[in-house]
Amino acid sequence: MIELFLIGIGTGNPRHLTLEAIDALRAADLVLIPRKGPGKDDLAGLRRRICREVITGDHPQLQEFDLPKRDAAHPDYRAGVDDWHDAIARIWATEIRAGLPQGTGKVGFLVWGDPSLYDSTLRIAERVAADLPLRLHVIPGITSIQALTAGHAIPLNRIGAPVTVTTGRRLRDHGWPGAADSVVVMLDAGCAFDALAPEGIDIWWSAYAGMAEEIRLAGPLAELAPRIAEVRAEARARHGWIMDIYLMRRRETAAG
Amino acid sequence: MIELFLIGIGTGNPRHLTLEAIDALRAADLVLIPRKGPGKDDLAGLRRRICREVITGDHPQLQEFDLPKRDAAHPDYRAGVDDWHDAIARIWATEIRAGLPQGTGKVGFLVWGDPSLYDSTLRIAERVAADLPLRLHVIPGITSIQALTAGHAIPLNRIGAPVTVTTGRRLRDHGWPGAADSVVVMLDAGCAFDALAPEGIDIWWSAYAGMAEEIRLAGPLAELAPRIAEVRAEARARHGWIMDIYLMRRRETAAG
Repeated sequence: MIELFLIGIGTGNPRHLTLEAIDALRAADLVLIPRKGPGKDDLAGLRRRICREVITGDHPQLQEFDLPKRDAAHPDYRAGVDDWHDAIARIWATEIRAGLPQGTGKVGFLVWGDPSLYDSTLRIAERVAADLPLRLHVIPGITSIQALTAGHAIPLNRIGAPVTVTTGRRLRDHGWPGAADSVVVMLDAGCAFDALAPEGIDIWWSAYAGMAEEIRLAGPLAELAPRIAEVRAEARARHGWIMDIYLMRRRETAAG
Repeated sequence: MIELFLIGIGTGNPRHLTLEAIDALRAADLVLIPRKGPGKDDLAGLRRRICREVITGDHPQLQEFDLPKRDAAHPDYRAGVDDWHDAIARIWATEIRAGLPQGTGKVGFLVWGDPSLYDSTLRIAERVAADLPLRLHVIPGITSIQALTAGHAIPLNRIGAPVTVTTGRRLRDHGWPGAADSVVVMLDAGCAFDALAPEGIDIWWSAYAGMAEEIRLAGPLAELAPRIAEVRAEARARHGWIMDIYLMRRRETAAG
């Protein structure tokens, strides 16, 4: 039987690693490291760095593989993603069979943030499990939501009030989510908050949350929106990529 | 200047501790540990155990203090909580002044889960800061949401879809939150899901998520609701306390 450990590693700060994640990594026989291709390998680099810092001796074996490209021209977006996950799962199965030819052992896969949150690894692992008998374990990791609130030293929620986590695309297409009090936006391809009427909304914005490059801006959305767009574009040009996240809250009225 | 570190420690598994949390704890001069009183000191016990495992030598100094009781008879709930936070902040300030008489140094405070999520520590720290000049740092920790999804090995969200985090009280009073797809319920005093029409809803329920005592149940809410109520009551009687959390999702229709 093969045991597959999906290991949350936090958001780019190697000190986000938990003791449980370190235990799982050290106990693995094989660690799979995906490569996204030239210019996109900051994450592979981070994974390699974490392995180097945590692993002593020549165990586990590190196995790098090239991620296939998603067919962005696929007429059906969801089906295109499904096909892509199928292709990745086939590669995982091939790499696991090659790395553990006896068909038994522990495989580790490092996941940015936490495996539960806007991440496809669990879905890929389920596809692998359909093909190769395996037992799945998930090791939680610090998410970019916690890196955001920690950086700004703010609570995620108002006292006893709900929080909605959504995507840039949803915010742009559907606006402020219902009666939500606090809204976290992830996977934003670019300033989806521009779709909102900004009056009465405060924003806490972080790019590269948790990493050495972290940038933070906070204040009334009406004032800050153009500044965030400017800082975001500049940082993206400088680093070649950007990952940002923000929390928005409607200001409480005097009665609130 | 005093530096105050609110350190997320995860949800009861000492292996949830991050390297960053360990660094912060070891660098502290003073660590404050609240005592809730006889029979309620599991959390104080966990904090002591973490300090014992992580700290080598006689640094930092551990300072235990008794938490005041909240006036549950206060006619205005919110004002009662405010008064209580004021009282706790006064104790923190007194303990910090006593522990760091020179008025400088690093204070650590261990926070269950993450300091951002349904936790009053940040609000207490702000009150202390109004009285005693200090710089606030937040170290993120694994939340019970991540312990829940890791234990069940499930994603928190559907692909590209939003997630709402709410409380048992809100669920009971306001029902399913709007058009939410996935709903996490925390701080539930007891089976608030009973207020919903259970058809078409799946639930993933964990008690003591992340701890050695963890209990998990998952399935259709209509079938599972009575079983959860039973298991919850039994566990609560056995341990003397319970902390549970659950994720609910509306089942996708065939068209979905």
